[in-house]
Amino acid sequence: MTKYVYLFTEGNAGMKNLLGGKGANLSEMTNIGLPVPRGFTISTDVCTRYYKDGKVIAEDIQEQIDAALATTEEIVGKKLGDAKNPFLVSVRSGAKVSMPGMMDTVLNLGLNDVVVEGLAKLTGNAKFAYDSYRRFVMMFSDVVIGVDKAKFERKMDAIKKEKGVEFDTELSAEDMKEVLDAFKKLYKDEMGTDFPQDPKVQLKEAIQAVFRSWDNERAIIYRRINDIPGDIGTAVNVQEMVYGNMGEDSGTGVAFTRNPSTGEKILMGEFLMNAQGEDVVAGVRTPQEISQLKDTNKDIYDQFITIAENLEDHYHDMQDIEFTIEKGKLFILQTRNGKRTATAALKIAVDLVAEGMLTKEEALMKVDPKQLDALLHPTFDTEMLKEAASIAGGLPASPGAATGKVYFTAEDAAAAHANGEESIILVRLETSPEDIEGMHVSQGILTARGGMTSHAAVVARGMGTCCVSGCNEIKINEEEKFFMIGDRRFTEGDWVSLDGSTGKIYGSKLPTIDPEVTGDFAEFMAWADDVRTMKVRTNADSPTDSATAIKFGAEGIGLCRTEHMFFETDRIRAFRQMILSETLEQREEALKNIEPLQKSDFEAIFKVMKGLPVTIRFLDPPLHEFLPKEKDDIIELAEDMGIPVAQLEAKIDDLHELNPMLGHRGCRLAVAYPEIAVMQTKAVIDAALAVSTEDDPVVPEIMIPLVGDVEEFKYVKKLVVETADAIIAKSGTDLKYMVGTMIEIPRAALTADEIAKEAEFFSFGTNDLTQMTYGLSRDDAGKFLDDYYSKKIFESDPFAKLDRKGVGTLIKTAVKLGSEARPGIKLGICGEHGGEPSSIEFCYLAGLQYVSCSPYRVPIARLAAAQAVITNS
Amino acid sequence: MTKYVYLFTEGNAGMKNLLGGKGANLSEMTNIGLPVPRGFTISTDVCTRYYKDGKVIAEDIQEQIDAALATTEEIVGKKLGDAKNPFLVSVRSGAKVSMPGMMDTVLNLGLNDVVVEGLAKLTGNAKFAYDSYRRFVMMFSDVVIGVDKAKFERKMDAIKKEKGVEFDTELSAEDMKEVLDAFKKLYKDEMGTDFPQDPKVQLKEAIQAVFRSWDNERAIIYRRINDIPGDIGTAVNVQEMVYGNMGEDSGTGVAFTRNPSTGEKILMGEFLMNAQGEDVVAGVRTPQEISQLKDTNKDIYDQFITIAENLEDHYHDMQDIEFTIEKGKLFILQTRNGKRTATAALKIAVDLVAEGMLTKEEALMKVDPKQLDALLHPTFDTEMLKEAASIAGGLPASPGAATGKVYFTAEDAAAAHANGEESIILVRLETSPEDIEGMHVSQGILTARGGMTSHAAVVARGMGTCCVSGCNEIKINEEEKFFMIGDRRFTEGDWVSLDGSTGKIYGSKLPTIDPEVTGDFAEFMAWADDVRTMKVRTNADSPTDSATAIKFGAEGIGLCRTEHMFFETDRIRAFRQMILSETLEQREEALKNIEPLQKSDFEAIFKVMKGLPVTIRFLDPPLHEFLPKEKDDIIELAEDMGIPVAQLEAKIDDLHELNPMLGHRGCRLAVAYPEIAVMQTKAVIDAALAVSTEDDPVVPEIMIPLVGDVEEFKYVKKLVVETADAIIAKSGTDLKYMVGTMIEIPRAALTADEIAKEAEFFSFGTNDLTQMTYGLSRDDAGKFLDDYYSKKIFESDPFAKLDRKGVGTLIKTAVKLGSEARPGIKLGICGEHGGEPSSIEFCYLAGLQYVSCSPYRVPIARLAAAQAVITNS
Repeated sequence: MTKYVYLFTEGNAGMKNLLGGKGANLSEMTNIGLPVPRGFTISTDVCTRYYKDGKVIAEDIQEQIDAALATTEEIVGKKLGDAKNPFLVSVRSGAKVSMPGMMDTVLNLGLNDVVVEGLAKLTGNAKFAYDSYRRFVMMFSDVVIGVDKAKFERKMDAIKKEKGVEFDTELSAEDMKEVLDAFKKLYKDEMGTDFPQDPKVQLKEAIQAVFRSWDNERAIIYRRINDIPGDIGTAVNVQEMVYGNMGEDSGTGVAFTRNPSTGEKILMGEFLMNAQGEDVVAGVRTPQEISQLKDTNKDIYDQFITIAENLEDHYHDMQDIEFTIEKGKLFILQTRNGKRTATAALKIAVDLVAEGMLTKEEALMKVDPKQLDALLHPTFDTEMLKEAASIAGGLPASPGAATGKVYFTAEDAAAAHANGEESIILVRLETSPEDIEGMHVSQGILTARGGMTSHAAVVARGMGTCCVSGCNEIKINEEEKFFMIGDRRFTEGDWVSLDGSTGKIYGSKLPTIDPEVTGDFAEFMAWADDVRTMKVRTNADSPTDSATAIKFGAEGIGLCRTEHMFFETDRIRAFRQMILSETLEQREEALKNIEPLQKSDFEAIFKVMKGLPVTIRFLDPPLHEFLPKEKDDIIELAEDMGIPVAQLEAKIDDLHELNPMLGHRGCRLAVAYPEIAVMQTKAVIDAALAVSTEDDPVVPEIMIPLVGDVEEFKYVKKLVVETADAIIAKSGTDLKYMVGTMIEIPRAALTADEIAKEAEFFSFGTNDLTQMTYGLSRDDAGKFLDDYYSKKIFESDPFAKLDRKGVGTLIKTAVKLGSEARPGIKLGICGEHGGEPSSIEFCYLAGLQYVSCSPYRVPIARLAAAQAVITNS
Repeated sequence: MTKYVYLFTEGNAGMKNLLGGKGANLSEMTNIGLPVPRGFTISTDVCTRYYKDGKVIAEDIQEQIDAALATTEEIVGKKLGDAKNPFLVSVRSGAKVSMPGMMDTVLNLGLNDVVVEGLAKLTGNAKFAYDSYRRFVMMFSDVVIGVDKAKFERKMDAIKKEKGVEFDTELSAEDMKEVLDAFKKLYKDEMGTDFPQDPKVQLKEAIQAVFRSWDNERAIIYRRINDIPGDIGTAVNVQEMVYGNMGEDSGTGVAFTRNPSTGEKILMGEFLMNAQGEDVVAGVRTPQEISQLKDTNKDIYDQFITIAENLEDHYHDMQDIEFTIEKGKLFILQTRNGKRTATAALKIAVDLVAEGMLTKEEALMKVDPKQLDALLHPTFDTEMLKEAASIAGGLPASPGAATGKVYFTAEDAAAAHANGEESIILVRLETSPEDIEGMHVSQGILTARGGMTSHAAVVARGMGTCCVSGCNEIKINEEEKFFMIGDRRFTEGDWVSLDGSTGKIYGSKLPTIDPEVTGDFAEFMAWADDVRTMKVRTNADSPTDSATAIKFGAEGIGLCRTEHMFFETDRIRAFRQMILSETLEQREEALKNIEPLQKSDFEAIFKVMKGLPVTIRFLDPPLHEFLPKEKDDIIELAEDMGIPVAQLEAKIDDLHELNPMLGHRGCRLAVAYPEIAVMQTKAVIDAALAVSTEDDPVVPEIMIPLVGDVEEFKYVKKLVVETADAIIAKSGTDLKYMVGTMIEIPRAALTADEIAKEAEFFSFGTNDLTQMTYGLSRDDAGKFLDDYYSKKIFESDPFAKLDRKGVGTLIKTAVKLGSEARPGIKLGICGEHGGEPSSIEFCYLAGLQYVSCSPYRVPIARLAAAQAVITNS
């Protein structure tokens, strides 16, 4: 028979999968002799069974629950529903991974009209008894039946007003009974039946409610954001109630064994005498500093200090401990590894190693790589945020905090910047490559459309600029330069603030805090570098980005997009002339003007990279992306080029595509216009010759994008090799270079053996590969993916977290076929997934040699690559 | 040592791969004792080597050529370059598959300034000698050097004019020498050197020129159209010259052993005395009927009749024979299976079985399935076509011939039709579902954009209407209702003609011939049905299409697209209201109006299909496809719906997608709007209940499109099953139905094991699967695929012929994973490839149980499915 229910004396800290974090720790503490209120844990398997069985608790499980309850009653010496000696319990969720506040809890369960009187007699505290019962009625109604808490609170407020009191504590026992009666009446009004009096029924209902809360909407969203699987379920803990509100010799509190903001080794926390835990949270009374407990009750304080130290020693990590004092007796209700800021996480990890509590490998596992982001970007002052309500939300596309005045076009933003404005938020329906300059001068970018890998998101991350994308709630009128959020209208110059790490948008100016990188960071990252086996490169298109990435520890460039160079004002003209050429001669003429610009760009990048590998991707986007869209711009360009507007419009129309993502782009451009590939080869090789030295030889890696058939690759490679070899021969040097390809089309992965015979390296372009494997446009999916999350079809955004089943299978296929055809072939990833920890672990398991990500994600990738080694060793 | 060169005495008819069709047949005829001019064949392997070695003949091969030449000289008793007894040869291409006129030929090789005099002396015919030499100079220059023939012909014309004669035959020997000298001078002017005098050099150059001609542009195009691989190469035949122009006892001719137009068993052909083969083609003199040869030379005639009969017996097929009479001696220059019309192909196949010459299986292999198309569609009178030059070309998107007046909008076409116009050609930039009605009334459809699987192409094939798509050469101004081809302007009412089987466009009215289906067709197709193992279904969306398909032998519907039903005027309004609903209530209200329409459509289809399986695909296209695009239509719709125009425009804008092919469509619609799937389920099940009888029980197959993850399928399946089961339970019947999915997204194929656990059938949607596997939009690819063909990157259009390497691998993966997870799972294909013979063979090999194609392709599929069995048995 499967064991579904565990007494706290039967579990231990190693059983988190089965008992959840809370349950496992309650068992562990019980077993090391700490004063833990007694109880039992219903395992996570029951949650899975509950859903599988159609949201019922199966009989065999119910029997085990009943048995565990009976045993606990025996140990405690009280009985559920016994008016003379009532057993009261809490019913709490507890998943493997902590999801604070996401699921439901019921306290004081076991009270009914009879028991409450017994409790009053037993404790000699009628007010306490009625207060406990009315709290139970409210919580039960909220959690089990779904009656809004606020309705109860309004009743309570009305009675307080009637009695002329401000605080609950001022109510008499009689008053509290009046509140209780009002609550029970509200229950009956809502449900049509009396409040359930059978404690067993109460317990059964409460347990089911907690299981149901696993799948409430906020829990689903929390899991998606925090990358927690949806099928692990929660456990339920049924535990003896202890009361901090039994008088001045009772109390409740929370403490961290180290400062969760700074990491300093000092006990931090607060407590409140004669209160229940929820009172601390509600903030009705101001809690006291934990150190003051010494003065209130030295014995208890000393006991708690010892327990706190023991728990930290026991768990080898900073603990977040909840305790209650009932009539002078200390109980530990919960301990868990405490949440902490990025700075604190690093300091604690480094300190714990210094203190001999952790090995370096263990310390590396203690820091969530995604947290490192916060170290590199400005953040909002968390205190200030408490007061500022967010007015809308979008996708957290590029982390950091930004506050500034809104502008609606890249030109306006650039003009404001030129006039000395330093706080600019660019607000666009969606950005296009033309907006680059305006994006550069902005502190933050907000778009109404586009996903995590939209143009705005990708470019912003590359720049390290805060970006919130795909915010469906804002309605932008770009022409008239305003946007609406609900009824609120924002025009040019209005202040807004963006949190690129949460996706929240605030309708006012909010102060930001600049990032601070400590010595702990360098030390910690050095450990990660020692452990990891994969190299970490960066996606960078400019010398500035490259230098940033080097600073963050990048070991090369995995993706240098050559087209981004073309959007600067002085170049776009030449590039447009090239696109709009009608003849080969015109195009070659235009290319001649572009070549020296490309060469100088590459030279500058090679110089920064000092001999580190640089992968240069040849022209990739469809040509129409480079053409003006607004009538005014078209007229200007036509005048510039000395051609009729109608002719230019016809040409632009001709380049229009129904599905540009599947259109004339990537190597398909080089097939149609070989002269572009030839020009780019010349620029790369000439630049390499100019910069390469004996000490830092430059070995450019030329990457052909969007290959789907080996014949495409062969065609372009031939152009590259013939051009490059001719230049190198003429130079008299022996410059080396490589020619490889992106694997970003399913067919390329499926025919990787053929391609590897020709290509010297593969770089997985997982943005496109994900789009095509799913048949899902990253720019359009934002509109309907919310439905996918809320209906539990997708657990996470496949553009953010690599899909191992589908896309991963293609990558593994390509690695296998490619390695067989060309043993030792260079393998990397340059899609956005290259900076996402779970995807990085996949890359490690798939046998890639490096990951490449935007500069600000390089530290994340370094740590994630190290964790991948540790987790899988 | 590899043998590269074969004397005609060394080969046989079985060696077509190595010797090409012509070479193998020359050997075969030699060996069965027919009078074949002697010579040797340079194998197709040499062609491959030639290209691999960088377009040179390797030394080892040259040695074999020299040896074979020497042996042949010995047998013939003449020597190349020997003025006293000159050996003159022809050098001809000959691939495994006949590619008439696509590659090059050089005749009279071996002549030079000395030999020509010897030949004059030897034959006593100076004019013949000079004529032969001047022909050689012209052909050599054209084929080897690339000097245009026309330049020579102009010289000749000038001399004839000067001499005051009309025909070549009227020139004297002296005149002919003058022509020769002029030709040699032209050669020197063009090349800067004298015409090469060394016959060995001539031979070497000519052989290489023939190999080069394998890759000339017209050969590449011919291979693509006729589905001939590009890597098999051509052989080269070097053969003793025989002359039909040595006087009145000489002649040349061509004959078919049966009538190639009708298939009638009667010798058909023509001959010309004192002439060379090219003279017959040139049409300078009118050839005589082959039967008249009896009067000219009874002996030769009888000899030829015997040979012709023997050859047909020998090859078990109708033969196309070329012969030459040199001074009263008959030579057979070539025999091959004759090209024939579809009607003739069927008659000959049926007759040959009746005559005991072929088994039914052999007969089935004699007809190209694609030819059957011509039997079902109107065609142009081939005689008329000779005079009408095509003015542009597009993709042969839907076969048949059409002639009519051009109209530029579906409305104009419909209006013209209502006014009694019966010849309508609808000309559009591209069609959209809104154009359906206009397409219905048109005889032909011409689009400037879109590929073989564009909307226009797919719909036209379904209707059996002629369509030429993606014609880049026409520039349409839809607004002003005209289009240009070059400088020629066509406006409404101008006549054009389209050949949907070749893609050619003619600028005038051309008579068409209606199709005629013979009894041979039924007999022949019955044999195919006996042999094939795969079922053939049809893609049909209406009772009319379904009835057509049944007539052509369809055994069910593999794809019924429910959305096509919505485009009719009386329905589009309700459908648009559904799309534009802001609330669930509005949408459900609109769906209520649609449900009875869908139900009655399904009822009508079920009635036609009489219990045969019908697969109904739920709503698939992105919703914005159903919305009006023109301002006028938007205003009208807004008025209809009683909402402001701006609001409607905002909604339409909101539905806009950057890449609709990868957007909110397929099952993603059902996830967002479950009420649509519920409505469609009700309509299907109610219709089935209404039509199903005990004898013809209806078992609808509900197909969920665009599934990429099993969770999507599960979500929609649950809606379907709950809705269907409730209705069926209420009906008190035991109606059966199936719920399955399309496999059209790479990820679906890669995770087919998971999906098959839930889905009762897979139908491969290879249009989308090809798009996504290649990352190639079928609507946009037309613009650049021509570059892919001419640069030899693609050999064929992957949307027309299934890509076995990439797409095929995914299909095989899905078949394997799906069959393992659900043994016996129903597997079919409903993409356009389901009607293409090579793809059908792949489906057979992959283990699919049926193919589904448009009604007019059903006979093709039936034959191709039979051929797949025979070829692979």
